[in-house]
Amino acid sequence: MSGNTFGNLFAVTNFGESHGPAIGCVIDGCPPGMALCEADIQGDLDRRRPGTSKYVTQRNEPDQVQILSGVYEGKTTGTPIALLIYNTDQRSKDYGNILQSFRPGHADFTYFNKYGLRDPRGGGRSSARLTAPMVAAGAVAKKWLFEKYGTTFKGCMTQLGDVHIPFESWEHVSANPFYAPAADVSALEALMDGLRKAGDSCGARLRVVASRMPVGLGQPLFDKLDADIAYAMMGVNAVKGVEIGAGFAAVAQRGTTHGDEIEMKDGKPHFKTNNAGGVLGGISTGQDLEVSVAIKPTSSILSPKQSIDTQGNAVEVVTKGRHDPCVGIRATPILEAMLALVVMEHALQHRAQCGEAVGKQ
Amino acid sequence: MSGNTFGNLFAVTNFGESHGPAIGCVIDGCPPGMALCEADIQGDLDRRRPGTSKYVTQRNEPDQVQILSGVYEGKTTGTPIALLIYNTDQRSKDYGNILQSFRPGHADFTYFNKYGLRDPRGGGRSSARLTAPMVAAGAVAKKWLFEKYGTTFKGCMTQLGDVHIPFESWEHVSANPFYAPAADVSALEALMDGLRKAGDSCGARLRVVASRMPVGLGQPLFDKLDADIAYAMMGVNAVKGVEIGAGFAAVAQRGTTHGDEIEMKDGKPHFKTNNAGGVLGGISTGQDLEVSVAIKPTSSILSPKQSIDTQGNAVEVVTKGRHDPCVGIRATPILEAMLALVVMEHALQHRAQCGEAVGKQ
Amino acid sequence: MSGNTFGNLFAVTNFGESHGPAIGCVIDGCPPGMALCEADIQGDLDRRRPGTSKYVTQRNEPDQVQILSGVYEGKTTGTPIALLIYNTDQRSKDYGNILQSFRPGHADFTYFNKYGLRDPRGGGRSSARLTAPMVAAGAVAKKWLFEKYGTTFKGCMTQLGDVHIPFESWEHVSANPFYAPAADVSALEALMDGLRKAGDSCGARLRVVASRMPVGLGQPLFDKLDADIAYAMMGVNAVKGVEIGAGFAAVAQRGTTHGDEIEMKDGKPHFKTNNAGGVLGGISTGQDLEVSVAIKPTSSILSPKQSIDTQGNAVEVVTKGRHDPCVGIRATPILEAMLALVVMEHALQHRAQCGEAVGKQ
Amino acid sequence: MSGNTFGNLFAVTNFGESHGPAIGCVIDGCPPGMALCEADIQGDLDRRRPGTSKYVTQRNEPDQVQILSGVYEGKTTGTPIALLIYNTDQRSKDYGNILQSFRPGHADFTYFNKYGLRDPRGGGRSSARLTAPMVAAGAVAKKWLFEKYGTTFKGCMTQLGDVHIPFESWEHVSANPFYAPAADVSALEALMDGLRKAGDSCGARLRVVASRMPVGLGQPLFDKLDADIAYAMMGVNAVKGVEIGAGFAAVAQRGTTHGDEIEMKDGKPHFKTNNAGGVLGGISTGQDLEVSVAIKPTSSILSPKQSIDTQGNAVEVVTKGRHDPCVGIRATPILEAMLALVVMEHALQHRAQCGEAVGKQ
Repeated sequence: MSGNTFGNLFAVTNFGESHGPAIGCVIDGCPPGMALCEADIQGDLDRRRPGTSKYVTQRNEPDQVQILSGVYEGKTTGTPIALLIYNTDQRSKDYGNILQSFRPGHADFTYFNKYGLRDPRGGGRSSARLTAPMVAAGAVAKKWLFEKYGTTFKGCMTQLGDVHIPFESWEHVSANPFYAPAADVSALEALMDGLRKAGDSCGARLRVVASRMPVGLGQPLFDKLDADIAYAMMGVNAVKGVEIGAGFAAVAQRGTTHGDEIEMKDGKPHFKTNNAGGVLGGISTGQDLEVSVAIKPTSSILSPKQSIDTQGNAVEVVTKGRHDPCVGIRATPILEAMLALVVMEHALQHRAQCGEAVGKQ
Repeated sequence: MSGNTFGNLFAVTNFGESHGPAIGCVIDGCPPGMALCEADIQGDLDRRRPGTSKYVTQRNEPDQVQILSGVYEGKTTGTPIALLIYNTDQRSKDYGNILQSFRPGHADFTYFNKYGLRDPRGGGRSSARLTAPMVAAGAVAKKWLFEKYGTTFKGCMTQLGDVHIPFESWEHVSANPFYAPAADVSALEALMDGLRKAGDSCGARLRVVASRMPVGLGQPLFDKLDADIAYAMMGVNAVKGVEIGAGFAAVAQRGTTHGDEIEMKDGKPHFKTNNAGGVLGGISTGQDLEVSVAIKPTSSILSPKQSIDTQGNAVEVVTKGRHDPCVGIRATPILEAMLALVVMEHALQHRAQCGEAVGKQ
Repeated sequence: MSGNTFGNLFAVTNFGESHGPAIGCVIDGCPPGMALCEADIQGDLDRRRPGTSKYVTQRNEPDQVQILSGVYEGKTTGTPIALLIYNTDQRSKDYGNILQSFRPGHADFTYFNKYGLRDPRGGGRSSARLTAPMVAAGAVAKKWLFEKYGTTFKGCMTQLGDVHIPFESWEHVSANPFYAPAADVSALEALMDGLRKAGDSCGARLRVVASRMPVGLGQPLFDKLDADIAYAMMGVNAVKGVEIGAGFAAVAQRGTTHGDEIEMKDGKPHFKTNNAGGVLGGISTGQDLEVSVAIKPTSSILSPKQSIDTQGNAVEVVTKGRHDPCVGIRATPILEAMLALVVMEHALQHRAQCGEAVGKQ
Repeated sequence: MSGNTFGNLFAVTNFGESHGPAIGCVIDGCPPGMALCEADIQGDLDRRRPGTSKYVTQRNEPDQVQILSGVYEGKTTGTPIALLIYNTDQRSKDYGNILQSFRPGHADFTYFNKYGLRDPRGGGRSSARLTAPMVAAGAVAKKWLFEKYGTTFKGCMTQLGDVHIPFESWEHVSANPFYAPAADVSALEALMDGLRKAGDSCGARLRVVASRMPVGLGQPLFDKLDADIAYAMMGVNAVKGVEIGAGFAAVAQRGTTHGDEIEMKDGKPHFKTNNAGGVLGGISTGQDLEVSVAIKPTSSILSPKQSIDTQGNAVEVVTKGRHDPCVGIRATPILEAMLALVVMEHALQHRAQCGEAVGKQ
């Protein structure tokens, strides 16, 4: 209710602050009997980890995950899986000068007004560091969904600032620090270098996809699969927009174009197009889930901005410290994890109401 | 869990089908002591009602709401408020020819595969008719929020198909059938007339705004105010995209531009711009909530489309019946209601954890 | 959250007041494809109905249930099942003299202090009349559980006031108005007649049993099957105590006696005794669920009691009107229904996490 | 949903196993601004701790709690409070001989059948050790409730096996290892010594009380305050019965006796008796909450019992290891904590719906 648990049947409760002793999460509801060890989780955490290229924050966190419970002799027991990640690089001094000021674009003002006090160290609870436990939980969901249905998750960057990135191949994604699906990322590097020199930042657009989806996941009215995806994505730090399938392009489409026609192919229903993005009436069609997300420019920049302090005095804020010039660069594994958590939740919801069978046809 | 209850503290449970005997909802958690009668609700229902112009479905439903419980001597008692709307115009015969086929762009395929059976009359549960009870519940939330904080909700259309609608004034909105904030809607009329002749449909982009928002509503991690707004909006029939504040335009913005600067004005904090859309770190800033939504073209069109039937045979589907050529035209009151329900939920959540005080400053 | 929805996966939202226009409930999460009609529900409602013997209230309510949604061509569709029961016998004048007084043993004082106002007609929301929709919802759960697992529910009275009722046979239960499992109920009749003459009332102890239980239903820590049973039973009007299995008798038992020994019988695990009441560690053993419940004496009595009014003046309260001299007499079908709702919820919860298989052995 | 989170607004998610690396919990929803440090929690943990007298298990666990998050500069921030307790004394070898057998009275059989596998070390998840994090969370709730309303919690033992313990004074409770409210506990010591020699165990009856309760906490239909108390108490390991107020004694009471009369005293409403146990219609009256709980005899005993193993072979089970001869002895602080968590949850629920005002009068 206070917003730190994601999901109901596969419920992930997240805790911690950027500069506290540790961050982590508790996964409740994981099906029993699945092989699970730290190595199954560490891979995705390493993809999200800071300090991996010169385009992301140089904070040095190994983000080593520990499984504290819920696994016995290498298998999930069906009881809560607690995952712990110690914070090791907490240079609080970096933030000393902004303790009493509200940084524009940050949650300082709202936390202070909501709670009457706030933990200012590294953004405290509002830090993107809290996405690490979600990536960890998402890895558990991904594993189960892959073993059960063969479902896979992948994502890429499709735009950085005003630079549109052509989709060439998924294979390029892991070959560059931007998760770009293109061979040549020199324009992206140039943009980043320019921003860094200018003490500025930019936004990004990311695409995330789930493939080999079971048919029939989702709920008809409120907990629509796409509604829960929108909730999950918009809940990630810095996200300002979410699209499913054709998204905002659907506004200018005609009904004759938009509705995806169905045919039989290899004895199975097949959609000729995917304007729906894999969801009709809130329920998965079996097509790829296609999600697109807008991420705002990093708010922590070296250029000064006008603001006020907690006493209402005018101040000028410059955010020193180790920040990503584009927070979207490291966001791909986060969005994949959130999508996996949504699909996992709906897989269990579907099984609760409708049983093991997935898809009449 | 099965997705027919919206909210937790102001929980609205929706029931009914397009062509069943009745639709309605139960509101649980409404604060006691608020004056409430049917007339307080009927106004918004009338704004959403079909048959009010030649640009919307000619289905003739009075949508008269009855309060069955939760109100005594004109005041809410704090117990569940059941709202009932009888369906009076259920011409099931209109739908006879599509009972066994999956209409492209509709939920037929997914319902059939999820549940193994479906109520095909008028779309059954997937009909946009089920938004009527939400408009009714939203009216209750709007009333409480206005009386408590002065908060108001309004919306308008900003694009119809490929026609962008300039914002001239909120006053125009109620003067035309499109909810357009412009004096001249002849281009919209021409577009609609053309689509109707062509047996086609188009999408729309709507904007919805909450003003005089309390500061501090929202939760830090998952139930962020903007995440819940995205969930609410994407859950409305035909919505394919949601933006908060600058939305997808934030991708190409620079950090120096995006982060809204703060100053003191009339003794209170004031944001110079509203790229945030009224939310920072998932919590309301007190600025207007600014939401933009993409609605896909109506899937029920007279032009034939290829599909299959429940046996897997290829069929051609033409959707006769009384359909809106653009479902976005009647959607404004729905989006307002959903936004009001989200704000109401968060107002109660905030009061639970932090007490009556709203905003430190 | 405001306490009018029971369950999460088989969620029953209850609404209405004793003397409002209607009472009812919405069942969300019912598995699709089950045959269901009003007659499947009416039977249990008739067992709970007032006016069926001289030992219960003479209020005359047919309690005719209507299915408003969620069923198509005689089968559940998986969408919300709304059940409506109109109130037809609402003699509000009976209650006129107690509108401003707090009746001892009633919820008048607490409702008034919680909400600042209350609906006094017939107890309003606190009336036992609101158990009727639960009996209706329970009938749906019973039907599914019987078809799926063969599970059945039954109950009886084991004590009325200070009269202990010997258990002779389940067959007697439907042959007398007390749900007594004994052939001779003359002592019970005598007790009731005496109480009526004295303007007094008494309590009752009831036993409720679920047989042919699946093994493995329940959760390990908080949503233990027995914890949820206790919650369900204590939530029924007038209940003051709940026991599972040996209950309070377990206090004086020795460990050597209490722990039920296990053996193999007909190739299956068999417990020699049932002190556990069918639950170990919060999870069903497959034995009968054995529950015992204490119901307090009816608070509405003709004998005068001291109290205060809303202004704090001393008053003497006599409750006229048509009241059950022992509310426990009609409670058996209510407790059966609540037990069925708990088992149903856990059946779906188990299926969500662990799949269709029930019981390893 | 999988039963490891207690509460909704003050939500405590519990994790860990008896012999895993650590146990703990995450508290979500704690009001911000309350002073909190480890010492505020450690006191109650020490009262529950094993090894404190010869009548409880000699397992040696310091149960030192660490606050990992949610507190900044000594004050709660409103974000999740993670509490961690490392397991230090995990002699798994003690349990080696029962890995494949189902101990009578234990959860071995049900866990194995539910999940298909189980962690047998020390009872794994079903160990009473998992009550330690609840005691810790309860201490946080107690602190807030005391500071806000002056509410206090206390408990005592009223029966040990077949020995009834007279209530003499609350002052005796902390002066003996049984939490007995009597000066002379020699009969209890004799009973314990006899049981230990006999390799046997016994049950206990405990009483737990909340004083200076706010009026108006609770919900009318399902989440009644007493229903949630029953749920909380029955969910504690080994509990088989729960009573509120007069409890099972209410069965033989008359209405003329049971309903507590109200008078004005010192200008405030005052109940002459407390058969209700502080709850009417599910809502607190302001009287003391009076709860009584039955705890079954310890199942881990040295006397042999018949059972089967996972292959269905007959086995004889003797539970060696370090066990409490009566698990009820250490249960008082646990029940206090659970009662505090229920009251805390309802305090926040009430504030959400009805605001800060508690009690009209």
